[in-house]
Amino acid sequence: MTAKILDGKKLRDKIFEKVKAKLTNMQNKPTLAVILAGNNQSSRIYVNNKKKTAENLGINSIIIEYPENVSEKEILDKIQELNKNDSVTAILVQLPLPSHINKNKVIESILPQKDVDGLTSYNSGKLFAGEKPYVYPCTPKGILLLLDEYNIEIEGKHAVVIGRSNLVGKPVAQMLLNRNATVTICHSKTKNLENITKTADILISAVGKNLVGEKYIKKDCVVIDVGIFKNNSGSICGDVDFENVAKHASYISPVPGGVGPMTIASLMLNTIELFENKS
Amino acid sequence: MTAKILDGKKLRDKIFEKVKAKLTNMQNKPTLAVILAGNNQSSRIYVNNKKKTAENLGINSIIIEYPENVSEKEILDKIQELNKNDSVTAILVQLPLPSHINKNKVIESILPQKDVDGLTSYNSGKLFAGEKPYVYPCTPKGILLLLDEYNIEIEGKHAVVIGRSNLVGKPVAQMLLNRNATVTICHSKTKNLENITKTADILISAVGKNLVGEKYIKKDCVVIDVGIFKNNSGSICGDVDFENVAKHASYISPVPGGVGPMTIASLMLNTIELFENKS
Repeated sequence: MTAKILDGKKLRDKIFEKVKAKLTNMQNKPTLAVILAGNNQSSRIYVNNKKKTAENLGINSIIIEYPENVSEKEILDKIQELNKNDSVTAILVQLPLPSHINKNKVIESILPQKDVDGLTSYNSGKLFAGEKPYVYPCTPKGILLLLDEYNIEIEGKHAVVIGRSNLVGKPVAQMLLNRNATVTICHSKTKNLENITKTADILISAVGKNLVGEKYIKKDCVVIDVGIFKNNSGSICGDVDFENVAKHASYISPVPGGVGPMTIASLMLNTIELFENKS
Repeated sequence: MTAKILDGKKLRDKIFEKVKAKLTNMQNKPTLAVILAGNNQSSRIYVNNKKKTAENLGINSIIIEYPENVSEKEILDKIQELNKNDSVTAILVQLPLPSHINKNKVIESILPQKDVDGLTSYNSGKLFAGEKPYVYPCTPKGILLLLDEYNIEIEGKHAVVIGRSNLVGKPVAQMLLNRNATVTICHSKTKNLENITKTADILISAVGKNLVGEKYIKKDCVVIDVGIFKNNSGSICGDVDFENVAKHASYISPVPGGVGPMTIASLMLNTIELFENKS
């Protein structure tokens, strides 16, 4: 192995130390409200993890739980209430929502000033226009923080993003473009994927299946693995064939311990940014 | 020359025939309000052209003119008035604005339902998220209409866009991505531009200087030239070395007569869409 590890855990811990110190000096604390609807077990684990992390740092948190059959109106009414409640800093709707609920309508109902995931049209429109949204989406923000921590140059580099979700692929492509990278977005309809990824200086894979083998990258590429899932034998893995890709990459983010911890670090940073922006 | 011409004038005229027929049957007509500030001569020509075109089709139009030293507040107040005025369908702020005026603030003040250029955060956020904005930005929309008119396949193709403006480069990249193209965005900081453009199935140049020579394209590429400017000898030209590139391209849009007429056709279509959406 020649690649250096992009250590998300280490950077997360460093960020958390700063956040804790900052919060100790604040008289009022921010409050993160999380809406969790339905019985998705992974969602429940994520939400509990967010709550625990927030509280460890001194951020107040509320979880509002709904059964699978909750009505859309109930959620929309709750968001209106949270929008109006001055003691609530940040609102997060844990995805996925039950399938009978219009996800876009729910997200759009969040006040942009409290939209901690940066997913409302107002915030994504600002990002798209190269202007400052209230906050940047958590996973893309975490990826940029990780690249910056290791002083990886972005300007003028060819960044290839695999995946075009609103949560990761599209916003990270936009943020890299705003930082003067040349950016290519690939996805399930891309032909000859390998030919494109092999031209990448920075490769970001956000697909959720084992895809990126050593043939997909050129020597000294920086590889960011956003995928996280359980393989057939039950172990947690990412999109990238870590062992073989690491032989050729200059930097690589592991799964777990790479982008995952940075996403939650960004969520906490975003909560504080919204709080400071308000006051 | 082997390339077929993507004839924007012909398609514009075809669209205008349909628009005229539609408007003849409407009892109320839409109204397009255009704000023109300062002494930019090109802007004045564009605005008069828009007004004349609108009126020929049966769309009402108002031009609101301000001197170079107009205050930001004056423009913002006028936009508020137009937002509230039920007889105004569509609001267009002709760019560039005088340099002391915050362009983003002015655009953002337009009601998204009247934002005929599709430039407010709400509309660009919807576009970015792959959802339906009230309208799509005019030039990108015109480019897609032109590709569709000639049955040019987009899905699975590699589209390379040169230029990342909010008016053209970024939204056209997003619209092509939404149509399942693999998309690369290049710009002034891109290294080895030629190596990237040579991989394009569809090449869109929106730079404003003579840049794209025959070495920049692969055989049978579809070439869209968005640039329009006067060269040293005073003749109107685009980004593309038309004569030489046309030898290798499968389709090419000329300048003038390609994207330009499609932009104004899209503006008229957008005005009507906003009108129909309201009623």
